[in-house]
Amino acid sequence: MDFKVTAMDGPARAGSIKTQRGEIHTPAFMPVGTNATVKAVSPDELMDMGAEIVLSNTYHLYLRPGDGLIEQLGGLHKFMNWPRPILTDSGGFQVYSLSPLRKVSDEGVEFQSHIDGSTHFMTPEKAIEIQSALGSDIFMIFDECPPYPSTREEVLRAVKRTTAWARKCKEKKSAVPKAEQSALFGIVQGGVYEDLRRQSLEELAPMDFEGYAVGGLSVGEPKPEMYEMIGLMGPVLPAEKPRYLMGIGDLKDCLTAVEAGFDMFDCVMPTRNARNGTLFTSEGRISIKRAEFKEDPAPLDPACNCYTCRNYSRGYLRHLFLTREILSMRLNTIHNLHFYIEFFRKMREAIAGGAFGEFKSRWEQVQW
Amino acid sequence: MDFKVTAMDGPARAGSIKTQRGEIHTPAFMPVGTNATVKAVSPDELMDMGAEIVLSNTYHLYLRPGDGLIEQLGGLHKFMNWPRPILTDSGGFQVYSLSPLRKVSDEGVEFQSHIDGSTHFMTPEKAIEIQSALGSDIFMIFDECPPYPSTREEVLRAVKRTTAWARKCKEKKSAVPKAEQSALFGIVQGGVYEDLRRQSLEELAPMDFEGYAVGGLSVGEPKPEMYEMIGLMGPVLPAEKPRYLMGIGDLKDCLTAVEAGFDMFDCVMPTRNARNGTLFTSEGRISIKRAEFKEDPAPLDPACNCYTCRNYSRGYLRHLFLTREILSMRLNTIHNLHFYIEFFRKMREAIAGGAFGEFKSRWEQVQW
Repeated sequence: MDFKVTAMDGPARAGSIKTQRGEIHTPAFMPVGTNATVKAVSPDELMDMGAEIVLSNTYHLYLRPGDGLIEQLGGLHKFMNWPRPILTDSGGFQVYSLSPLRKVSDEGVEFQSHIDGSTHFMTPEKAIEIQSALGSDIFMIFDECPPYPSTREEVLRAVKRTTAWARKCKEKKSAVPKAEQSALFGIVQGGVYEDLRRQSLEELAPMDFEGYAVGGLSVGEPKPEMYEMIGLMGPVLPAEKPRYLMGIGDLKDCLTAVEAGFDMFDCVMPTRNARNGTLFTSEGRISIKRAEFKEDPAPLDPACNCYTCRNYSRGYLRHLFLTREILSMRLNTIHNLHFYIEFFRKMREAIAGGAFGEFKSRWEQVQW
Repeated sequence: MDFKVTAMDGPARAGSIKTQRGEIHTPAFMPVGTNATVKAVSPDELMDMGAEIVLSNTYHLYLRPGDGLIEQLGGLHKFMNWPRPILTDSGGFQVYSLSPLRKVSDEGVEFQSHIDGSTHFMTPEKAIEIQSALGSDIFMIFDECPPYPSTREEVLRAVKRTTAWARKCKEKKSAVPKAEQSALFGIVQGGVYEDLRRQSLEELAPMDFEGYAVGGLSVGEPKPEMYEMIGLMGPVLPAEKPRYLMGIGDLKDCLTAVEAGFDMFDCVMPTRNARNGTLFTSEGRISIKRAEFKEDPAPLDPACNCYTCRNYSRGYLRHLFLTREILSMRLNTIHNLHFYIEFFRKMREAIAGGAFGEFKSRWEQVQW
């Protein structure tokens, strides 16, 4: 993996990550493909809209269908028919957010499957093994992600464990020949405690990961605290590595984070909202079920060039949504993802043109 | 509309229907697009697989979103982004099969909406008005479709009403300028009573419809009775007009009906089965959820060239089905519809090559 910053506009930066499976232009938005599919769209549609990387979930794929099965069928790229890069999270976040029961020790996390209640033990080593079996291009370390609110002591313990697990992940990865071509990113924890965030980064920085992520945000803390942490971390994460803000995809949050120097984002927001009939347009969010769209012959967003906007009216999309047709979820998802990917492309253009500040303040006025 | 028989093999025939919106090769299978969408697939996918016509439902579209709305938005073709021919049924069958309450008189049918319980009155004239508003290429007359079992008297009354309504439909259609370019098909009723079937046809034949359908089969009667009616009607329906067997799509039934001289078919079987994980292959039906497919790297049907079979393994399709992913329904639907459309193309080839009997007996040995 090779990362280059190609333009800067203040701390905001545009760049390029080169991987064996293709180039990723940053700032990049990664559509989420939890179960080895980005919900409601095909890989061809993702490529058509210019998606350069997708994120997939180690926790989910480990439980179902199993990483061994995916490896046997040729790896995750072949399994899901997606030839471009894949980043896999490590399962750290899901073990905390989805499992009904868990027991954390220094060795790892014992947890119950949210699918069938079966008991599993996830360790840093196992998280690497799974990501190797999947054949991911970018691995994430297995981290401990405390909920909000947590006490300083709880968060400190999680920071220390994350550091210890990060080391184990790095060691394990270098021992797996199959993982050689893949990158490994560290994850900074520390909750909303400024000193713990700094401590976490200080402990991880010497390990020289190929990228650095900030985890444990957008887990319930107030927005000002989240923004404070984004503003704190952006400038201090290693400048020569990609900086990834995990799980955050509200467009205003992305603008704030890009301004602080972040490069990579993932979020279910465009896909989940699409299935709920909430659509992003150049004039703000709309809910397609609203009566005002009943007889509306216009496309969702007259400024958009996606397949949905080129071919269908708001009146038709409202009808599909109200009749709960499958095509509704697909056409809405195509639009929302296209909107996100275009939004990020325009951010890169603005950075390259030295106009990111202007871009940001213009989009901050839109009603999301 | 212009219909030509281009080849015959016994009573089985291959032909071509030319409409203002394109040609339909017969025997033809029409995918069902009830709510102005063929469930789970896009119009582009339908065109890619060679679908030449789709069926849409007057009853459903009248109730939701309303034929007036569709007309206002440019007609059904534009609304659903499907440029090729559309056949609309008249709502006669749905009024009987879906409405929780109905009252039939010589004027029409008062019925309750299965969506919101509201009361509506459907008449032959109104069925034509709706189909005109939709901009359908092939209209169906509004018929009375009695359930099975019904007494001879009940069926006789339905035959007489269907005849009277057929006349009203024809008159109404000739009075609607917008409907001039569209065809109107009659529907023969008569249940499983041979003499009533003959009577229904004798009454409708002089009205010179542009095509003749057989309705009221596959409504619960035993297969031998259905086959008897198919064998009875095929040879006596006007030879110079398309012959349409409504709502029947089991492939063995289609083979039997083509052998008897039928040309057109519609059925939700390939689409509904796809969503339930039941798939048609050259070796018979399979249920994709079965454990034997868990680690199977082969495509659904090695003999198939559809998008699904070219790109995905059985193992992946089983995983998508078990995780209830939307892509599962789409990939399965693409395969099943492609299989049907190819099956019908091969039937036409067999008829043209004088080998339909051989084709039929070969496929009858497959486990459907």
